[in-house]
Amino acid sequence: MKTPVDIAITGAAGQISYSLLFRLAAGEFLGESQPINLHLLEIPPAMSALEGVVMELNDCAYPLLNRIITTTDPKVAFDNVDYAFLVGARPRGAGMERKDLLQCNAEIFMVQGKALNDVANRNVKVLVTGNPANTNALIAINNAPDLNPKNFTAMTMLDHNRTINQLAEKSGVKATDIKNVIIWGNHSNTQYPDIHHAKIKGQDALSLVENNWFINEMIPTIQQRGAAIIKARGQSSAASAATAAIKQMRLWALGTPASDWVSMALVSDGSYDIEKGLVYSFPVTVNDGEINIVQGLEINKLSLEKMKLTEKELREEKEDVKHLFS
Amino acid sequence: MKTPVDIAITGAAGQISYSLLFRLAAGEFLGESQPINLHLLEIPPAMSALEGVVMELNDCAYPLLNRIITTTDPKVAFDNVDYAFLVGARPRGAGMERKDLLQCNAEIFMVQGKALNDVANRNVKVLVTGNPANTNALIAINNAPDLNPKNFTAMTMLDHNRTINQLAEKSGVKATDIKNVIIWGNHSNTQYPDIHHAKIKGQDALSLVENNWFINEMIPTIQQRGAAIIKARGQSSAASAATAAIKQMRLWALGTPASDWVSMALVSDGSYDIEKGLVYSFPVTVNDGEINIVQGLEINKLSLEKMKLTEKELREEKEDVKHLFS
Repeated sequence: MKTPVDIAITGAAGQISYSLLFRLAAGEFLGESQPINLHLLEIPPAMSALEGVVMELNDCAYPLLNRIITTTDPKVAFDNVDYAFLVGARPRGAGMERKDLLQCNAEIFMVQGKALNDVANRNVKVLVTGNPANTNALIAINNAPDLNPKNFTAMTMLDHNRTINQLAEKSGVKATDIKNVIIWGNHSNTQYPDIHHAKIKGQDALSLVENNWFINEMIPTIQQRGAAIIKARGQSSAASAATAAIKQMRLWALGTPASDWVSMALVSDGSYDIEKGLVYSFPVTVNDGEINIVQGLEINKLSLEKMKLTEKELREEKEDVKHLFS
Repeated sequence: MKTPVDIAITGAAGQISYSLLFRLAAGEFLGESQPINLHLLEIPPAMSALEGVVMELNDCAYPLLNRIITTTDPKVAFDNVDYAFLVGARPRGAGMERKDLLQCNAEIFMVQGKALNDVANRNVKVLVTGNPANTNALIAINNAPDLNPKNFTAMTMLDHNRTINQLAEKSGVKATDIKNVIIWGNHSNTQYPDIHHAKIKGQDALSLVENNWFINEMIPTIQQRGAAIIKARGQSSAASAATAAIKQMRLWALGTPASDWVSMALVSDGSYDIEKGLVYSFPVTVNDGEINIVQGLEINKLSLEKMKLTEKELREEKEDVKHLFS
C-alpha cells in the first residue's frame, strides 16, 4: 500500500464538503490505490456537526481512509499537508456590502495563508473554492511568502464545466465532444466564458452556434448559473462545486489530457497583458504538476473588452484587501 | 464505448439521492468505462428541486452521463431499467404511529412494485433503501409477480459497514482488517449485528474484544447509530447511506471478494429457520449476479434469540401490510 497523502479541507462541516469528503475517501481524487488522511478544519460552532460527518465517514469503512483529524486550528489542519481544499468562507449576510464580505473573508484567508506558509508541505497544492475565490487566493498567497505562489489556484473549473454543458446542450452533442472552452478572469458575474477557440467534434464552435446566442444567451447564463440553481433547488450548488474541485485538483496533480486544456485561476505572469500578480483565470495545461498558461491565442476586440472588464473587478478587489498583505 | 445501462432512482431530489447521483455519474458504481442513463422519479412538489439537481448534474459535464430522464410516473422511471435504487420513502411525521408509517410507505412500494413488474428489464436489480426497507421490499416483491423475488434486496450494508467500523475502532485496526461480520434481520433497532464469526486480522473477533462490550455496547451502538448521527449532524445519514447503497449494488452486480461475505436483506428461503418469504438480512456471497446465503454457520443460544426477535418484528410488519399484496 502506498504512503497516505495528507489532504486538508476547510469548512469541513458545510454543504460542499459534505459532497466532497466521501468522494475523496472513495478514491475519486487520486485513484483506488492511494490512501488518504483527512485534516478537517471548522469553526467552533460547527464542530458538533463535523463530528457527525466524521461518524458517517467512519461508517463507510472506506479502505483508503487512513486517518481523520478534526480541529479548529489552521496550523493543525495544514500540518504537512500535500493538498488543501479551502472550501470554507463566510457567506454574504443580510445588509452586508460587497466590501464587507471581501473584508471578513480576507481575514480568514490571511490566517490560513500564514498557517500554510508555516506548516504545509513545501509542495502543497492549495485550491481556493470559498468565495470571492480569486481574491481569497490572492490574500492567502500574499500571506505565504515562503511558498511559491504557483502552489495556489482558485476554482473556475465549475464555470468551465458549465460552459462545456451549455455548448453541448445547444449543439446537441455530448460533453466529451467539446474541447478548448475558456474561462477568463474572476469567478464572479464578470467572468468571461469564451468559445472563440472551442471545438465541437473538432469543428470551430462559432461556425456551428450563432454569435448572437454566444453573446446574448450563453455568457449571461454562465455568469448567472449559480443564482439559477439556487432558484430551482432552494440551495446553492454543492455537489457540482465538489465535482469541479475534485476535477481541478486531480488534473493539477495528475496532468491534463493532451487533446484539451482547462481553466484555472492562478497568479498572472502578465500573459495576455493581464496585470501581474492578480489571481486571474486562464486556459492552462498541466504537466508533472506544473501549470502552464496556454500562450499565443488570438484575442479579438470583443474578447479583449470582456477580459479587461473582469480584470478591472479583480484590481478593485485587490485595492480593498491589500492592507492585509504581509 | 459500452452501451449505457439504465438506472432508476426514486426520491431523486432528496438528500440521499443528492449524495448518490453524482457518484453514480462519476463512475463509482460500475467503473469509469460504463456510461449510464439516469431515470429520476419524484413527486410533483419536488420536481422544481429535481430540476436544480439535474442542472447541477449537467454542469459536471460527466463523460459517463449519457442521458437524464425526470418524471413523476413510475412506469416511465422504470422503463427497461437494469438497476433501481428505491430511495424515496415517506418520513415519519409528527403524531404518526408506526402502523401509519408502514401503511403510507406500503402504498408507495405497491405502486412501484407493479410498475417494475410491468416495465423493468427482466433482470433488473432493485435495491430498497427507503424505510421501513425490508417490508417495503416485501410489498414491492409481492406486487411484482412476473419478476423473480431474487431481483429485490433491501439495504443492510450501512449497518454492516457500521459494524466493521465499531469493531475496527475498538480493536485499533483498519476497516480492511475486519472480515465476516453479519447483520441479521430487519434494518431497524431490532437488527442483530453479529460478530461470532468475524475475524480481526484473521483471528476470531471474540477472542480479541470482550463479550460484554459486544453485547452491551456494540449492539446498541449499531442499533441506535442513525439517531446518534441525527443528534450530532442535525440531519439524518445521507452520504454514508449513499456509500452503502453503491457498495451493495456494486457487489451485487460485480460479485463479492473471495475472502469475505457481506449482509443483504433478501427473501428468506427458510435458511437458519427464518420464515420463508420474509425479507430478512443474511450473510451472503454473490457470484455472477446470483446472491447465495452463507450456509452452515453455527448459531448459539444468544444469537438464536436475537435472530428470532428481529424475525418477530418482520412478521408483525408483514401482518400490517399483507392486504396490499397482489
